[in-house]
Amino acid sequence: MPERSLLRRLLRMPERPPAPRLAARDAQRVIDLCKALMSERGEVSGARLAAETLQAYKTLDEVSLPVFFDLLAAQFVPDPDAVSSAADNYRESPIPANLLKLQRAVDSPRQELFRRVNMAPGGTTVLVEMRRRILRDLRDTPLWVGIDADLAELFRSWFNRGFLLLERIDWRTSAQILEKLIKYEAVHEIQGWRDLRRRTQADRRCYAFFHPALPDEPLIFIEVALTKGLSTTVQPLLDPEAPVFDAGNADCAMFYSITNCQEGLRGVSFGNLLIKQVAEDLGREFPRLKTFATLSPIPGFRAWLSAQAGKKDGNGDPDPRREQLAGLLAMLDLPDWMTDKGVRTALQRELPRLCAQYLLLAKSRAEPLDSVARFHLGNGARLERLNWLGDTSATGLRRSAGMMVNYVYDLSDLERNHEAYARDNRIIASRRFDLLARESLLVRPQEKST
Amino acid sequence: MPERSLLRRLLRMPERPPAPRLAARDAQRVIDLCKALMSERGEVSGARLAAETLQAYKTLDEVSLPVFFDLLAAQFVPDPDAVSSAADNYRESPIPANLLKLQRAVDSPRQELFRRVNMAPGGTTVLVEMRRRILRDLRDTPLWVGIDADLAELFRSWFNRGFLLLERIDWRTSAQILEKLIKYEAVHEIQGWRDLRRRTQADRRCYAFFHPALPDEPLIFIEVALTKGLSTTVQPLLDPEAPVFDAGNADCAMFYSITNCQEGLRGVSFGNLLIKQVAEDLGREFPRLKTFATLSPIPGFRAWLSAQAGKKDGNGDPDPRREQLAGLLAMLDLPDWMTDKGVRTALQRELPRLCAQYLLLAKSRAEPLDSVARFHLGNGARLERLNWLGDTSATGLRRSAGMMVNYVYDLSDLERNHEAYARDNRIIASRRFDLLARESLLVRPQEKST
Amino acid sequence: MPERSLLRRLLRMPERPPAPRLAARDAQRVIDLCKALMSERGEVSGARLAAETLQAYKTLDEVSLPVFFDLLAAQFVPDPDAVSSAADNYRESPIPANLLKLQRAVDSPRQELFRRVNMAPGGTTVLVEMRRRILRDLRDTPLWVGIDADLAELFRSWFNRGFLLLERIDWRTSAQILEKLIKYEAVHEIQGWRDLRRRTQADRRCYAFFHPALPDEPLIFIEVALTKGLSTTVQPLLDPEAPVFDAGNADCAMFYSITNCQEGLRGVSFGNLLIKQVAEDLGREFPRLKTFATLSPIPGFRAWLSAQAGKKDGNGDPDPRREQLAGLLAMLDLPDWMTDKGVRTALQRELPRLCAQYLLLAKSRAEPLDSVARFHLGNGARLERLNWLGDTSATGLRRSAGMMVNYVYDLSDLERNHEAYARDNRIIASRRFDLLARESLLVRPQEKST
Amino acid sequence: MPERSLLRRLLRMPERPPAPRLAARDAQRVIDLCKALMSERGEVSGARLAAETLQAYKTLDEVSLPVFFDLLAAQFVPDPDAVSSAADNYRESPIPANLLKLQRAVDSPRQELFRRVNMAPGGTTVLVEMRRRILRDLRDTPLWVGIDADLAELFRSWFNRGFLLLERIDWRTSAQILEKLIKYEAVHEIQGWRDLRRRTQADRRCYAFFHPALPDEPLIFIEVALTKGLSTTVQPLLDPEAPVFDAGNADCAMFYSITNCQEGLRGVSFGNLLIKQVAEDLGREFPRLKTFATLSPIPGFRAWLSAQAGKKDGNGDPDPRREQLAGLLAMLDLPDWMTDKGVRTALQRELPRLCAQYLLLAKSRAEPLDSVARFHLGNGARLERLNWLGDTSATGLRRSAGMMVNYVYDLSDLERNHEAYARDNRIIASRRFDLLARESLLVRPQEKST
Repeated sequence: MPERSLLRRLLRMPERPPAPRLAARDAQRVIDLCKALMSERGEVSGARLAAETLQAYKTLDEVSLPVFFDLLAAQFVPDPDAVSSAADNYRESPIPANLLKLQRAVDSPRQELFRRVNMAPGGTTVLVEMRRRILRDLRDTPLWVGIDADLAELFRSWFNRGFLLLERIDWRTSAQILEKLIKYEAVHEIQGWRDLRRRTQADRRCYAFFHPALPDEPLIFIEVALTKGLSTTVQPLLDPEAPVFDAGNADCAMFYSITNCQEGLRGVSFGNLLIKQVAEDLGREFPRLKTFATLSPIPGFRAWLSAQAGKKDGNGDPDPRREQLAGLLAMLDLPDWMTDKGVRTALQRELPRLCAQYLLLAKSRAEPLDSVARFHLGNGARLERLNWLGDTSATGLRRSAGMMVNYVYDLSDLERNHEAYARDNRIIASRRFDLLARESLLVRPQEKST
Repeated sequence: MPERSLLRRLLRMPERPPAPRLAARDAQRVIDLCKALMSERGEVSGARLAAETLQAYKTLDEVSLPVFFDLLAAQFVPDPDAVSSAADNYRESPIPANLLKLQRAVDSPRQELFRRVNMAPGGTTVLVEMRRRILRDLRDTPLWVGIDADLAELFRSWFNRGFLLLERIDWRTSAQILEKLIKYEAVHEIQGWRDLRRRTQADRRCYAFFHPALPDEPLIFIEVALTKGLSTTVQPLLDPEAPVFDAGNADCAMFYSITNCQEGLRGVSFGNLLIKQVAEDLGREFPRLKTFATLSPIPGFRAWLSAQAGKKDGNGDPDPRREQLAGLLAMLDLPDWMTDKGVRTALQRELPRLCAQYLLLAKSRAEPLDSVARFHLGNGARLERLNWLGDTSATGLRRSAGMMVNYVYDLSDLERNHEAYARDNRIIASRRFDLLARESLLVRPQEKST
Repeated sequence: MPERSLLRRLLRMPERPPAPRLAARDAQRVIDLCKALMSERGEVSGARLAAETLQAYKTLDEVSLPVFFDLLAAQFVPDPDAVSSAADNYRESPIPANLLKLQRAVDSPRQELFRRVNMAPGGTTVLVEMRRRILRDLRDTPLWVGIDADLAELFRSWFNRGFLLLERIDWRTSAQILEKLIKYEAVHEIQGWRDLRRRTQADRRCYAFFHPALPDEPLIFIEVALTKGLSTTVQPLLDPEAPVFDAGNADCAMFYSITNCQEGLRGVSFGNLLIKQVAEDLGREFPRLKTFATLSPIPGFRAWLSAQAGKKDGNGDPDPRREQLAGLLAMLDLPDWMTDKGVRTALQRELPRLCAQYLLLAKSRAEPLDSVARFHLGNGARLERLNWLGDTSATGLRRSAGMMVNYVYDLSDLERNHEAYARDNRIIASRRFDLLARESLLVRPQEKST
Repeated sequence: MPERSLLRRLLRMPERPPAPRLAARDAQRVIDLCKALMSERGEVSGARLAAETLQAYKTLDEVSLPVFFDLLAAQFVPDPDAVSSAADNYRESPIPANLLKLQRAVDSPRQELFRRVNMAPGGTTVLVEMRRRILRDLRDTPLWVGIDADLAELFRSWFNRGFLLLERIDWRTSAQILEKLIKYEAVHEIQGWRDLRRRTQADRRCYAFFHPALPDEPLIFIEVALTKGLSTTVQPLLDPEAPVFDAGNADCAMFYSITNCQEGLRGVSFGNLLIKQVAEDLGREFPRLKTFATLSPIPGFRAWLSAQAGKKDGNGDPDPRREQLAGLLAMLDLPDWMTDKGVRTALQRELPRLCAQYLLLAKSRAEPLDSVARFHLGNGARLERLNWLGDTSATGLRRSAGMMVNYVYDLSDLERNHEAYARDNRIIASRRFDLLARESLLVRPQEKST
């Protein structure tokens, strides 16, 4: 495997310890099938060879799989000489035909390989799963970046919005798909079939995007509650025993959970499309709906609080504001803080302000630090309202200090908001938010301590 | 439009006369929408903008459309400087990351444009139609080659076999789709609904590939007759009044027509996949089937005959064999040659031999001259049998001199045959074929004229 | 066959000439299978025996079929003694249990036979066809009335509205079903696929009722044109070349054809349900629709005119009014009356008045003489408007003297209108209709002849 | 309500205490709607009125419902005078027309009422539920027998086998339907979704009959395990953790549960049809299957044992054999009899013999005493094998003394077996069964006690 070695040297990576003989043999066998699939034979017997290749690939285990990925990364790549020569031609004469030749020269043969593998039944599923596996270990195996890139490129093409099907999920849906929802739900865990059933009743809606080649696999799904007024706490929405509300009287559609199901499709984004289309569809079905909003966690809040408390000022001196913050954090660690009125009052006074500051002002490279905020604000939504004790679950307390936030999707403003956000990094928020943030103890003029 | 002019100069093409002002304005409007679609706004309002763009594009007419294509060809292309610099980096250090950067630099932004257009309902249909239009005039407008290449690349990805649906077409199929068959059938024209109906009865099968995004558009379809023994003449198969044969007793599946429906998908090949899969499916449904074969025209035969007759020998002297051939061709031009026994006998003696020679020996760059032969032999089929007066329709006489040929698809030999063909340009044919070809008057030792 | 003879004597019918031996044998074979189906064996092997019976029944021909019906009519009937005794018990003590016993005693075993036959695939189709055949000859074979009654009773139960599916028919519908429309359309013949296609375009609607057991057989279908203003002539609606109207601007839904497809379901009425449901559905789809109306023939008009002209007065003297009428009828026989201005004017003056009289006043046992009028008025529709030269086809002229009429379905009045009609034989008509009828030459005070 | 009183007197039933005024009013309101539905108005506004009637009916509660049923039972019945007179006519002249008139006279108007109610969406569901309710209390309210009979008659017609759909149930089925299986399963309770999932995996099959008007309601379902060799104990089949067997190697299809879901369809039998059709379908799918058999409980066995033990001989003297039996029964009551080797051996020696005797010889009016035996033997199955400790669940021990039995469905013998059973009350059993039964302590020559 000289190519691989060369690359490793170029990348200054240590050689992986030699793979056990059996693993090497198994991996090589799949590579050989891949080569057959790319050969003349592959043109006539494509479907059969693709199925065989898939079959062989599926037998690879945790030892042989990395060996296979190494081989796959090193092979099925463009020929450097051909690339150079095509690049030279193009530079000399940048006409379309030369551009085309260059494009073909740099085109990854691996993409054609994946396209051929996809001819076998179930091929798409395996390829999506392959990328999930690659991504899992990509940090430690930068060599695989080409495999990842080729798959990502293919998926962006295959999973084009024009090919996706928006489908409503409810109790008429097959158990096979419902089971997947239970498995995938990432925001507010589904506690079995009874919980799931409540989430599909008349005052709820659940929608998912599907791709025709993965009919039993939701790509992303969203859960909505139809309510009177903005929901500010999530526990009532998650209660399997909650009475069913008459959806005809609802004026709000609350998006309380959105989950990407396929790790292997990371970076192929569906979320904003899904929210917008669901909002439009619901608006048609229920003309009385006036507000489309989320009830969202603030997953990075508490970690940020801790980081803030730990910071020193320029001189390394203790900062009284950060000490005050550390005190608040200590209160949050008390097991019964929610029932102790004094503690609770103190926290309720300061935490919302800090949280508003976090959402509006804490940035990472000009974008909000909070991943959920990045997603919704990037979609053009508006920061509307902070909810004290909006999520009192263990996770909610641990990550968001029990707070939740409503992002409002105002369909007529999304585009303008998105542009302000994308061009000028401007966050659109309600006035209340701005005021709250300005009162944060880390922002406001420091109170005199005497 | 300096870019375009530059290109035209590079390509040594005359400037197109300036487009009428209105056409230029309409074309520019669509280009502006395309740009908006590629901008920040496009990310949030993609589906809406895509629909608008599509709508505007559809209003372009025969005058404004070429203007639009010219603009599209010149814009949405990679930045030459970025390409050069990425090529240099890669040359210096051909690591995966640099390859990836180069791939991204040469990637056509137009492909991303098309992917975004595809978000609109009906987008795929419009793009396939756009390529049909481009291909029609590509010879005269080489500038458009980049548009064609970008669309072709996308289509190869989108219309991957793994996403196609094989569907049986019969009298239960929707009129909408059946009507398309009447419209598209290219081999043996369908004479209205009665004819079509006969082609869907119990001793016939019709299958097509569909893509989920084009549910009402067959991509390719094939017509099969279940028969006892190899069919040697096509007219009985096309007779709407022919009695229905009991398919349970059939031992042959005769593929008598295969039609690519979408000109815009040229080069994205489905034909060999379709034949193989239909043969496998039929074999399962009718275990008594022993032979899968075509009954095919030889569309280039008569043109080749004429060309042969017109050739001179090295000295420019008349060649007695070619004079004999010219005589045969003159007979074929007699209006009643089929009923004149003498003429017919003479032709029946020589034409099959010439035809065997044509199919086996006439080449264009190592491949068979005949396009139908190229297709079936390339799929791994075998030349089996020549049929004198196999197609006595006007078209059959004009192009194939009334002859037809059976290509046999022997599933267990396809791969081997294909390899022999692809590697060594070897044509697999029955022994009879070889013998016939050797007896061709153009091949055999010349008879003494005295 | 003594039972049959007894019945024939009771009914004073001549014995049918003895059936040919072969026919008798075939018929008896089916009867034997029917008996097996009703026996113990039938309980276990019902589906198989039913299929056998069906198969054998289908082989009966025009000679053996009447023999079979004779046997079927005479057998599988209640036992008269059991009926008498159950009737006596019930008379003595009319408690539910005795009623039940009597009901069971009079229950036709033939119904159970038909129910068992229906277990075979395709059974329902055969039974519906059987009744069509029975009805065709029922006038000459009153013995078969019991078979007819048993089938009719079953069908009323099976084809209950609750089991019917209303389906839209358009160009996406299967050719198999569309072909049936061409075959069945009884009001305005469909001239092939091109004509049918026009009737399914965007300004038209076609709906049919289906039953799950007859998925390829429409039971009844209706054709609707969406128009601006009431249609008064039918030819533009039937023109395959007529431009397609923008349905969004329509304010009228014109029902221009309604056809019962299954003769064997005679008396199981779907028509009024279909019209009402289609009107409701269209009203929801097109909120701008204000009028739901038919454009209907007056099929009995011209025959009635002739009958009137032939009548004498009490003394057998010629009646000058009837002579005037005879003159008008003679004009209608002129080949070119429509182009002769004088003739046309004379007819246009008197015919609408006579037609109004016919529709409003000509009765048969208190109901309108005209069958189409009976149907729509019985549904609660209103006579709205007469249309001179509304249908100039050969059939339209021959039956309706070229006139057509609009019946209006005003959903909010249907119930009241129907009650007035059903209880008091009152016809609801527009004021114009009343005025016209009063001016009919047969009604108005006779003009002085001098 | 004089009619009702008369009937009560005739039936010698006590008057029901007068219904509370409100209940009477509610019940009367539904009756009034029923009458409107049967009137002229009903003909035009049937669907609307039916929906209203249904709506009103659904509001009746446990107090008003019996009042409504009383009214319904007394009204909508044939006119006794008309019945008498039609009966007289028929007696005088039993021609088809007079039979028809009598049939119409005794026809229950209530059936027509139910047919009209069925026009409303969901009508069939309500009527099936109505009969369930009637049947529940029929023993105490014999007056309702007419309602029951009318509904049963309708259902026999509507739920004809020809209209039922056999559908496979598996993990792709909707949660809505799967949930019903959990609810209805009567033989071996389903312990939640995990248990259900195991019952739908690759070595299992589940099928149900559906009716098009009740798409979400299975009528009856059957569960099958594909096994190697006859299953003799049920616990492994019910274990959610049992490994999945490769169905391709199965030679037996074990029907281990069959459940009628709709109490309201009692007497409309589907069971034998379902078993036969499933056996045929499985035989086609798995050609290696050789045996189709049940693994069934013997639900009446232990009750019969107790009854036998309690019997006296003619003289009222204690019978030593019965004393021995009582001893065995006492052992069965020991909590740990299965682990006490002595006890177990004693029981294992005698119980199978007694059970064979019970199944073969214990009769009620010439039919087997055991209800499950009656069902399978009536279908033509054969008693094959007794399984000691085949079902050690609490229910299995309590009802069947832990024993189970295999009934074999040999498709080619079913008809003959059924006839022997139906005509001569002959039970078809394996030789082992006969031998076992003869050795029963209640049958064999009594052993000397000294």
